[in-house]
Amino acid sequence: MPGAPCLVASPSDVSTQKILVAAHAAGVDLRLEAPKTPGPPEIRLEVAGNKQCVRYANAILRFIGRYYDGVEVYGSTFFESAEVDSWLDWGEMELANPPLQMEQALETLEKHLDQRVFLVGQRFTIADASLSVALHSLQSQGLATSLPRATKRWLGTCMAQEAFAAVIKGAKPSAASASAPSAPSAKPKAAEQPFEDRYSSAVGGRSEIKRIVAAEDQGKSLVGKKVSVCGWVRTAREADKGKIMFVQLNDGSTPLDIQVVIDSGAKGFDSLKGKVGTGASMKCTGEVVASPGGKQAVEVLVKGDGSEVILFGGVDAKEYPLSKKGHSHEFLRSIAHLRPRSNLIGCVARVRSALAYATHEFFRSNGFMYVHTPLITAADCEGAGEMFQVTTMMAEAEKDGKPLPMVNGKFDYTKDFFQKPAFLTVSGQLSVENYCCALSKVYTFGPTFRAENSHTSRHLAEFWMIEPELAFADIHDDMNVAEDYLKYCVRYVMENHKQDLDFFEDKIEKGLIKRLENLLAEPFARVTYTEAIDILLKESPKANFQVPVEWGMDLGSEHERHLAEKVFKKPTVVYNYPKDIKAFYMRLNEDNKTVAAMDVLAPAIGEVIGGSQREERLDVLDRRITEMDLNPQDYWWYRDLRRYGSVPHSGFGLGFERLIMLTTGVENIRDVIPYPRYPGHAEF
Amino acid sequence: MPGAPCLVASPSDVSTQKILVAAHAAGVDLRLEAPKTPGPPEIRLEVAGNKQCVRYANAILRFIGRYYDGVEVYGSTFFESAEVDSWLDWGEMELANPPLQMEQALETLEKHLDQRVFLVGQRFTIADASLSVALHSLQSQGLATSLPRATKRWLGTCMAQEAFAAVIKGAKPSAASASAPSAPSAKPKAAEQPFEDRYSSAVGGRSEIKRIVAAEDQGKSLVGKKVSVCGWVRTAREADKGKIMFVQLNDGSTPLDIQVVIDSGAKGFDSLKGKVGTGASMKCTGEVVASPGGKQAVEVLVKGDGSEVILFGGVDAKEYPLSKKGHSHEFLRSIAHLRPRSNLIGCVARVRSALAYATHEFFRSNGFMYVHTPLITAADCEGAGEMFQVTTMMAEAEKDGKPLPMVNGKFDYTKDFFQKPAFLTVSGQLSVENYCCALSKVYTFGPTFRAENSHTSRHLAEFWMIEPELAFADIHDDMNVAEDYLKYCVRYVMENHKQDLDFFEDKIEKGLIKRLENLLAEPFARVTYTEAIDILLKESPKANFQVPVEWGMDLGSEHERHLAEKVFKKPTVVYNYPKDIKAFYMRLNEDNKTVAAMDVLAPAIGEVIGGSQREERLDVLDRRITEMDLNPQDYWWYRDLRRYGSVPHSGFGLGFERLIMLTTGVENIRDVIPYPRYPGHAEF
Repeated sequence: MPGAPCLVASPSDVSTQKILVAAHAAGVDLRLEAPKTPGPPEIRLEVAGNKQCVRYANAILRFIGRYYDGVEVYGSTFFESAEVDSWLDWGEMELANPPLQMEQALETLEKHLDQRVFLVGQRFTIADASLSVALHSLQSQGLATSLPRATKRWLGTCMAQEAFAAVIKGAKPSAASASAPSAPSAKPKAAEQPFEDRYSSAVGGRSEIKRIVAAEDQGKSLVGKKVSVCGWVRTAREADKGKIMFVQLNDGSTPLDIQVVIDSGAKGFDSLKGKVGTGASMKCTGEVVASPGGKQAVEVLVKGDGSEVILFGGVDAKEYPLSKKGHSHEFLRSIAHLRPRSNLIGCVARVRSALAYATHEFFRSNGFMYVHTPLITAADCEGAGEMFQVTTMMAEAEKDGKPLPMVNGKFDYTKDFFQKPAFLTVSGQLSVENYCCALSKVYTFGPTFRAENSHTSRHLAEFWMIEPELAFADIHDDMNVAEDYLKYCVRYVMENHKQDLDFFEDKIEKGLIKRLENLLAEPFARVTYTEAIDILLKESPKANFQVPVEWGMDLGSEHERHLAEKVFKKPTVVYNYPKDIKAFYMRLNEDNKTVAAMDVLAPAIGEVIGGSQREERLDVLDRRITEMDLNPQDYWWYRDLRRYGSVPHSGFGLGFERLIMLTTGVENIRDVIPYPRYPGHAEF
Repeated sequence: MPGAPCLVASPSDVSTQKILVAAHAAGVDLRLEAPKTPGPPEIRLEVAGNKQCVRYANAILRFIGRYYDGVEVYGSTFFESAEVDSWLDWGEMELANPPLQMEQALETLEKHLDQRVFLVGQRFTIADASLSVALHSLQSQGLATSLPRATKRWLGTCMAQEAFAAVIKGAKPSAASASAPSAPSAKPKAAEQPFEDRYSSAVGGRSEIKRIVAAEDQGKSLVGKKVSVCGWVRTAREADKGKIMFVQLNDGSTPLDIQVVIDSGAKGFDSLKGKVGTGASMKCTGEVVASPGGKQAVEVLVKGDGSEVILFGGVDAKEYPLSKKGHSHEFLRSIAHLRPRSNLIGCVARVRSALAYATHEFFRSNGFMYVHTPLITAADCEGAGEMFQVTTMMAEAEKDGKPLPMVNGKFDYTKDFFQKPAFLTVSGQLSVENYCCALSKVYTFGPTFRAENSHTSRHLAEFWMIEPELAFADIHDDMNVAEDYLKYCVRYVMENHKQDLDFFEDKIEKGLIKRLENLLAEPFARVTYTEAIDILLKESPKANFQVPVEWGMDLGSEHERHLAEKVFKKPTVVYNYPKDIKAFYMRLNEDNKTVAAMDVLAPAIGEVIGGSQREERLDVLDRRITEMDLNPQDYWWYRDLRRYGSVPHSGFGLGFERLIMLTTGVENIRDVIPYPRYPGHAEF
């Protein structure tokens, strides 16, 4: 989200008023500034954070509709959006000031509004904002004073909208007499509140806290509004000898809390006594007021008529394991069921969700189809090393009190569920290649497993992988997808999760945001393995590597990071690795020494992506399988793809948790997955 | 997608030309019709399938940009879209015919274009279409004949776009002399072709087949264009004594094949001999021509200069298991690695991918966060019945040639990877509730497992589930989400996968599309279980149920379908079930007899969703756990949620494969998942 947007326009202008009403309806607070230079009327929207500028009234209206609250104020479907567009243009032409053919325009409007509440769809849109303000303005000039029935009703409805009333002072919903500016405006319904969550009827409606405190204007445009917020107490304290209670409430929609000030006279106050500590859940209904403290722009004051607090669930402060003070990451892991209530894990959860969404959005918008590859596999080609076995035999043996059935000194797998040994997959690649060679562009995104007895901060027994696979594509196409995809994800989080990133910048990695900006700034560096070795050999004297550099070696973390951090200072793709250190399915290059494999190395993180062009030539593939002491028959279906309509194709794998670590700076992989699984740990 | 859109406008009008150029750039073929009624100039876009109509030139331009190819021609970011909007409005005002202040307008344009190729971003947008056509039109009237440098270059670039050249005949890229209409237009680059896939440099570029044959106009607007298509041969036959080869090519982007006609004189023709049968893969470069046959609107003619065929991989027709004729679903399951090349499984794969995307889009746009709940679990509360066990003990025992380690007559799980028995999850619900009680609105979407020895067409050992969970929400909120979500998914597929649905309608379920339209048409019926029983009792005499109806029973499939198909004739939600037939965690109603559970029943499908409000009162929950002979201590962390800030919350589960069956009409669950797992089957 960019910084607070500024509307440079003449305050008295009708276009300005249209925009302010629309912005209010979309929940955006615009700073209004009169143009500094005299001259022809000018109107523009400056969005400071991005140094971007939108000009012309309708373009600004559309920008507001699209950027801030697309679905709500710009129609809910493509057609509704088109209708909004039509009405915006119609208004510009037909309700210009003064209109050329007023009678005809009103006739059109009346006909359209006859059976409708709003111009388009079921809601107040930017089209309603634009036309109602235009019509109201004409009325206040003594034009269009006598409106036909439906148009009159519609104008009344528009003027009764909070957005209209907030901007155009003294507007009143009757269109009969336009010159009586001080009649009271229609009172909004009690239940109506800004950004009411659609699915919260159980509590009589609530607003997500992010819609208030994480808004562009930090909620200032909502001052004076009644809101209900629900959430969990971060901290609570009494003041003024128990006459006031201060509560920091969080509902997980944003890392930011909202401050609630509860007056002892408020309905429900007495029920809070001794029960409202950190972790308690409650609903607070009150008025948004400017906050006297400097920490937040607004707070909710629960005082007077219509105010109320409801305690959903109290907590025994002595027992609740989370307190206001921070906790060690280790401790938080031991209470994985409660740790999403901590700032760290809450932020991680939001960013994780965003990265998953960005992943699907990137691939779908580029024509890739999502394929669910299987988790349980009895395919012989997977190889049982470091795999988890999946069985029903042990439970049955225990139930019957018998040992496992044996045959010829081995377990008798004909008795198992799948009638042969079955395992949890270590990669969806081979399965997804089948779909690639039918649908051309596919990806899988699902859990994968390693039964490695590893206790490091970089390994999990269960983790999520993204594996795209493209037909008619070589290693360079593969690198292009990898780079575009990574950038798409990082950009998505930067654009949509500023508050979460601020938390990570502040608490986890100073310089995180700069590191991410750097990742987006330029094309990634791309060097062959052989070039990389040459560079590293030249660097060796000053770099002082622990493992000496020589062609044919697998690059160590120290070498990878040196390349990305010291040499190129940005993400670096190394490709064409020696065949002996890579898998059998990677395509052999012409030199017979290297294969078309590539790794993406990121500064501060190391390898995030590994991929390759796949060997599509059956004879070469078979030779490589044999060279590696594997059995071609185990790969019968993988080989079939090379027998029947083989195509050049490529793909890569990205550990989803690595991507989250890259984006957040969190260093222990156990903290970027909700329930980490590692040796001895599979609780919750 | 709606039917072929029709532009009702005067062909000679500048606005019409703007729209045609933009449509061409977005790949939309518009039928052009002159307005029938004389009168003031009118312009509108009719989209027949939806009986919708968009009016005004800029609104139509925006609709085209947004609906047909958003990102490409309407800017790639919110800001770019806003800039496009600005320029559209600017053009309407400043390049009107005749412009009021031409010099000033050109100055603005020149300044902006000085460092740019296009008006906005890196691509030709609808803004370029609009302004270049406007400027070109002014020139052809003898106005604006002398353009400043950058503007001249930009206009030349725009005029060299295929879209421009295709619409405005005789346009030439020099702006110097506007009155020479027949100079040849700039020749497009050889590599440039419509909708070139971004990641296909390996094959020198290709166009997805869906962009041609599944376009609104079935590719007619591309006639005369050079294209390269890649894919797998569905059928191939020679004609005219081997002088011509007809190939039906499919690349999985759409169920529709493209017909390719290869002339024996074309480059590469000889390499095809005896190798091009069903299943072979190839690239064909040729010209799009109108198809003389009635089956398709266009075909690709590979003949003459620049034409070429490349065979990537041949096939031995005797060995290839898929043939032109249809295969039984059972047979296809036995070749799961090749079956995505069949029409059935290709269509299923595309719809499955679309439904997954719609799922994420629905929940994210409603503020839900995606949580990856764990697959492997050692939580005691899962209960080991019908669960798969996950272990490394058996493999280790086999490696060492020893029996499984025992202690006290039981397996010694301290030797296992997780140091206790671990299983594959049967539901993410309990884990996702933890995140719900921190983030307020969450969902999980991942694989779940049942070790049921079931061989039916409705059960799998491994399947995918979607489980949303909402705080501050009761059973009615839950029903609202369920209904909105289902409708969103169905609508998404109807709008985006018409060709796939046509296949299902044709081959799988006559009446499918009507059934889906019916699902969207009205609010779902909602009845309490008690009401449902009353209805069923009344219906019993004529319905002749196998299992007699009485209060307290679990509804059978016959009862559920009777309600949805015969009584309400639309999806039906039944809620407030007897507590004794439901799980312990469902919220007990005031009547002490029923719980706030709900099932969504769909005609022809039966139950698709099951959900409930969760019991948030610790004392009631404990009572229910004990009543059901479970051990409260096994649920310690689930109980913690009720001890610390308990909130009302609700959720439901939907089997993803059920949703696909509902949307496609496919009846066997093994055909809607890429690699079905059931007893004895875990290959590939």
